[in-house]
Amino acid sequence: MDQRQKTPVDKKDVIIIGGGLSGLSAAKLLKEAGVSVVVLEARDRVGGRTLTVKGPQFQYVDLGGAYVGPTQNGILRLAKELGVQNYLVNEKEQLIHHVKGKTYPFRGAFPPMWNPIVYMDYNSLWRTLDDMGEEIPCDAPWSARHAVRWDNMTMKELIDQLCWTRAAKEFATLFVNVNVTSEPHEVSALWFLWYVKQCGGTKRIFSTSNGGQERKFVGGSGQISDRMARQLGDGVRLNQPAVRLTQSDTAVYVETLHGDKYEGAYVISAIPPGLSMNIHYDPPLPPVRNQLIQRVPMGSIIKCMMYYKQAFWRDKGYCGTMMIEDEESPISMTLDDTKPDGSCPCIMGFILARKARHLIHLSKDERKERVCQIYAQVLGTKEALHPVHYEEKDWCEEQYSGGCYSAYFPPGTFCQFSRVLREPFGRLYFAGTETATRWSGYMDGAVQAGERAAREVLHSMGKISKAEIWTEDPESQEVPSQPITASFLEEHLPSVPAFLTVMGVSTVLIATVTALGMAAFKKDLHLHLFNLI
Amino acid sequence: MDQRQKTPVDKKDVIIIGGGLSGLSAAKLLKEAGVSVVVLEARDRVGGRTLTVKGPQFQYVDLGGAYVGPTQNGILRLAKELGVQNYLVNEKEQLIHHVKGKTYPFRGAFPPMWNPIVYMDYNSLWRTLDDMGEEIPCDAPWSARHAVRWDNMTMKELIDQLCWTRAAKEFATLFVNVNVTSEPHEVSALWFLWYVKQCGGTKRIFSTSNGGQERKFVGGSGQISDRMARQLGDGVRLNQPAVRLTQSDTAVYVETLHGDKYEGAYVISAIPPGLSMNIHYDPPLPPVRNQLIQRVPMGSIIKCMMYYKQAFWRDKGYCGTMMIEDEESPISMTLDDTKPDGSCPCIMGFILARKARHLIHLSKDERKERVCQIYAQVLGTKEALHPVHYEEKDWCEEQYSGGCYSAYFPPGTFCQFSRVLREPFGRLYFAGTETATRWSGYMDGAVQAGERAAREVLHSMGKISKAEIWTEDPESQEVPSQPITASFLEEHLPSVPAFLTVMGVSTVLIATVTALGMAAFKKDLHLHLFNLI
Repeated sequence: MDQRQKTPVDKKDVIIIGGGLSGLSAAKLLKEAGVSVVVLEARDRVGGRTLTVKGPQFQYVDLGGAYVGPTQNGILRLAKELGVQNYLVNEKEQLIHHVKGKTYPFRGAFPPMWNPIVYMDYNSLWRTLDDMGEEIPCDAPWSARHAVRWDNMTMKELIDQLCWTRAAKEFATLFVNVNVTSEPHEVSALWFLWYVKQCGGTKRIFSTSNGGQERKFVGGSGQISDRMARQLGDGVRLNQPAVRLTQSDTAVYVETLHGDKYEGAYVISAIPPGLSMNIHYDPPLPPVRNQLIQRVPMGSIIKCMMYYKQAFWRDKGYCGTMMIEDEESPISMTLDDTKPDGSCPCIMGFILARKARHLIHLSKDERKERVCQIYAQVLGTKEALHPVHYEEKDWCEEQYSGGCYSAYFPPGTFCQFSRVLREPFGRLYFAGTETATRWSGYMDGAVQAGERAAREVLHSMGKISKAEIWTEDPESQEVPSQPITASFLEEHLPSVPAFLTVMGVSTVLIATVTALGMAAFKKDLHLHLFNLI
Repeated sequence: MDQRQKTPVDKKDVIIIGGGLSGLSAAKLLKEAGVSVVVLEARDRVGGRTLTVKGPQFQYVDLGGAYVGPTQNGILRLAKELGVQNYLVNEKEQLIHHVKGKTYPFRGAFPPMWNPIVYMDYNSLWRTLDDMGEEIPCDAPWSARHAVRWDNMTMKELIDQLCWTRAAKEFATLFVNVNVTSEPHEVSALWFLWYVKQCGGTKRIFSTSNGGQERKFVGGSGQISDRMARQLGDGVRLNQPAVRLTQSDTAVYVETLHGDKYEGAYVISAIPPGLSMNIHYDPPLPPVRNQLIQRVPMGSIIKCMMYYKQAFWRDKGYCGTMMIEDEESPISMTLDDTKPDGSCPCIMGFILARKARHLIHLSKDERKERVCQIYAQVLGTKEALHPVHYEEKDWCEEQYSGGCYSAYFPPGTFCQFSRVLREPFGRLYFAGTETATRWSGYMDGAVQAGERAAREVLHSMGKISKAEIWTEDPESQEVPSQPITASFLEEHLPSVPAFLTVMGVSTVLIATVTALGMAAFKKDLHLHLFNLI
C-alpha cells in the first residue's frame, strides 16, 4: 500500500519545517553549531510572511512583514550580520487623524483629543492597558493574577468597560485592528493585553519614531531570509510541504507532499501553530495541543501600496501617516513608503480584519479605486486619485500563511491552551513568531523563537546547558531605544469616573449613567423582538 | 521529485473524504443513484464521531454520538432502513438537579426554581433565547436582523445581559456546556442561538422525553455506519487520510498519506470544517474559506461510562439523569445508560469544555475515582463508590475528529465566515454535520448534510433538478414528536425588570442596581491594579 517506502531517505541531525525567518534563524544557528540541518519549505520561495517583490515601477517592495524598530534587537543583529541596512520611515511632517469626515494633523504617537472628557478617557485607557499589562508575565501569561477573568472576556468587553466616551471606544477599535489584524470582539482581552505588553506597551507598539514602525530595510526584509537561505545552500528545500511527521524513540521522520522522506534526530516546527494542522502526526499530538492548533486563527489583512509621481502629501506638510476612522474607508492606517532616496513616492495602507474579509470580493481595480478615493478625501487633494502604480497582497488567500500578521487567541483559549505553545512533544520542538515572548507576531519574535528552539535542540543533544537556551540580545548600537515616558498629565489625569466623583457627582449617578446605556440596549433588544413576534 | 507519479490511479465518479455518518450517507445515496463512489477514511474504522465498542463487561457501548429523538427524521429513517432498532432512555423516575451541595429531585425538561425571582428570571431566559432564535433563519443565520450585533458578543455577554440572578446565569452556563461542549465565553451568541433554534428550541434540545436525548440505538449507533460500509463493500477504503486535493476543469484528484491516488469527477468533503486543514489544495481554497477553516474549533469532551452491579439509583426513585452544578465536580450531566433489558446498569456522564481540558492530565483511574465520588455525593449513597467497570473516551485526543460533539464559532466569526460553509469550490462539495440546517452537530445533521451534498453532485451531473437538492423527511412513525408547549406561566410571567417596574420600582433604580454590579467590577479591577503597581 505505502508507495513511498521505496523513496530514499535524506538523513540530517535536525529537520526544520518552514523556511520563514524563524525556521531559517534556527537552521543558521544550528549549522553554525556544527549540526546538520534541512529546511523544508512549502512554497517556491523562502521568507514566509515576509515577501519582497521587485518591479520596474517600484524597484522593490515589502508586501509582507516590513517594519522594525528599537528593542527589536534580534532581527536588528541578524540583519546587520547579513549586511542588510535599515532606514527611517518618514515621520518628519505631521501625522493625520481622520475622524467624522475631518482631517486633524498632529505629532506624537497618538492623536490628541480636544474635548477634555474624551482626553481624560483616552489617556486613562492607554494607562490602564499598560497597567494591566504590568501584571502579565511575558513568558507565562496564564499565571497572571486575573488571567482567567481577562481571558474570558473579549477585548471589546474590556474597551466597553474602560471607556466612557464613544470617541475613545472607536479609536481603541482601530488600535486593536492595526496591531493584531483582528477585531476587538474576536480576541481574548488577556491575549491582547499580553501582546501589547510583550512589545513594550501601547506607545512602543503603535509608534513610528521610537516604536515598532520606526524603520524598514533597504532593499526589503525578504533579503534577510534570502541571505540565510543562500548560506544554507542545499540545506533549504523548496516546494516541500510537510504532510507526515512520525516519531520513534530515537528518530523523527518527515514526509512531504511529493513523497520525499527525511530522517532526523530532532524536528523543529517553524510554521504558525494553526498551520501545523497541515501535518498528520504519528503518534498523534497530545490532546491539548491537538485542540490548541484548531484555536489560533491567523489575522486578516490586505496590504496596499499606492505609487505616485510625487510625494505630494509632504508638500502639504503631511508625513504620510494617516489613522482613518471611517467605516466606509477600506484603509484604517497608512505610512509613507517612499524609498529613502526619495524615489518611488508611495503610501502604504492596511485593509484590516472585518474590512479585509468584506473587500476580498472586489476586484483589484475596485480596491485601488476605493483606496485612492479615501486618500484624496483625507489628504484633501485630487492628486491622490492619480497613482502611477498599485501593488497589493491579500494574505487571507495564502494557504501556507493562513493570514497575517499573526495568530490570535479567541476569548477563553489563551489560559488553557497557550501553556503548551512551546512545550516540546517528544523530538518535536516549536518555533515561529507566535511562540516568542518578546515582539511575538513580528520579525523579531520569529528570530527569537527560531534561535530559542534551536538552542533547545542543542541542549537536548548535550551541546549546551539548560541555562544557555534563553538569551537576551544586547541593545542595538545603530537603533537604540529611547525610554517610554509619560507626561505629568498622562500620569496623573484622572479617569472619567474618578473626575466626576471629585467634581461631586455621586457614584450612584455615575453608575446609573453607565447602566442607562446598558438598559437602553436591553430595551432596544426586547423591542426588536416584540416587533418581530 | 514526485515519487507518487508512478502510482496507478483509482477512478470513480465521486470521491468522498471521510467515512463518518455524513460521508457514508452521501456514498449510499450516490451508489443507489447509479454513481460510482469511493469513500476515503483516515482511521482504521468507519463511523467518525460515533464509536460503538464491544466488551464482555458491557456488551456494547457508544463512546461517541449516541442519542436520537423526535424530529430527527433523517437518522431515524436511515436506521430503520438498515434494521437498527432504538429504545427509550430511562426517564421513569425522578431527575436530579444538584446545586450548592444539595440534591433536588424533579420532573420535566428543566429543573424548577423555588425562589420566585429566580423562577421569573429563569423562565424569561428560556423564552428570550427561543424568541431571539425565531429571528434567525436556519439556512442563513447571517441574514438575521441583529446578526452582526449578536455575533459580536459572546454567549456569556448575552447571559449576563439577560439574567438578573446568579442562579439563572450558572444554570445557563451548564446549558451551554452540555449542548455545545464549550464555554459561554468562547462562543458567538448568534451561533449558539442559531444552534439551539435549528434543533427546535431550548426544550427540544435539552429534553430526554420528546427531545434530543429521548432514545438510543439497540446495539449502538456505530452499526448504522458499519451497515452502510458493508453495503458499499470495497467502495470504502480505511487508513486513507487525504493529504492532497487537486482540481482541473474536468476532474479532481485526491492523494492519501500513503501515496494512493484517486481520480473523480467530483469530490465531497465530509469531515469537520476545521479538519480540512489536513489537506493541501491545488488550486488553493478561496480566501474566506482558507480563513474559515482556522476559525471552527471542535468542542472538548470526555465521555465517561460507569458500570454498576445494580441500578441502585432507580431503587432510590431516581432515573439516573443528574444536572450537576459544582465547579469541583468533573461531571456536569448524566443519563442512565442501562441496557433496555435492564442488563449492564450504567451511568453515562459528560466531562465538558473547561473541565475536559483541566482533567485531561489525570490518569483514567483518577478520573474514575472523582466521577464515583460526585455520584455518591449527588445520589446520597456509597454504592456509587463501587463500580464494576469503567469506560471513557477523551475526544480531545482524536487527530481525525479534533474534538466532539461539533465545531463552534467564536465571537465575530459566524456572520462573515458561515456563509461559505456549504459553498462548493469548483468540483468540491461540502457535507459533515456542521453544514446541516437542522440538528447540525448531531447524527441527524450528518445524514441531512451528506445526502444534500450527494444531491448537489447529482444535480451537477444533470441527474436531478435543482429543486430536488433539498428534501424534507416525513415524520418518523415510530418516533413521533409531540409539540413543544409553554404553560400559561411560562408564556406570561414577566421578566425580573418588568416585574420590578410593575411593582413600582423606578427604572432608574433598576438600572442602578445593574450598574452597581458593573461598577463593583471596575472598582475591583482598579483596586487590584493599584495593589500591584
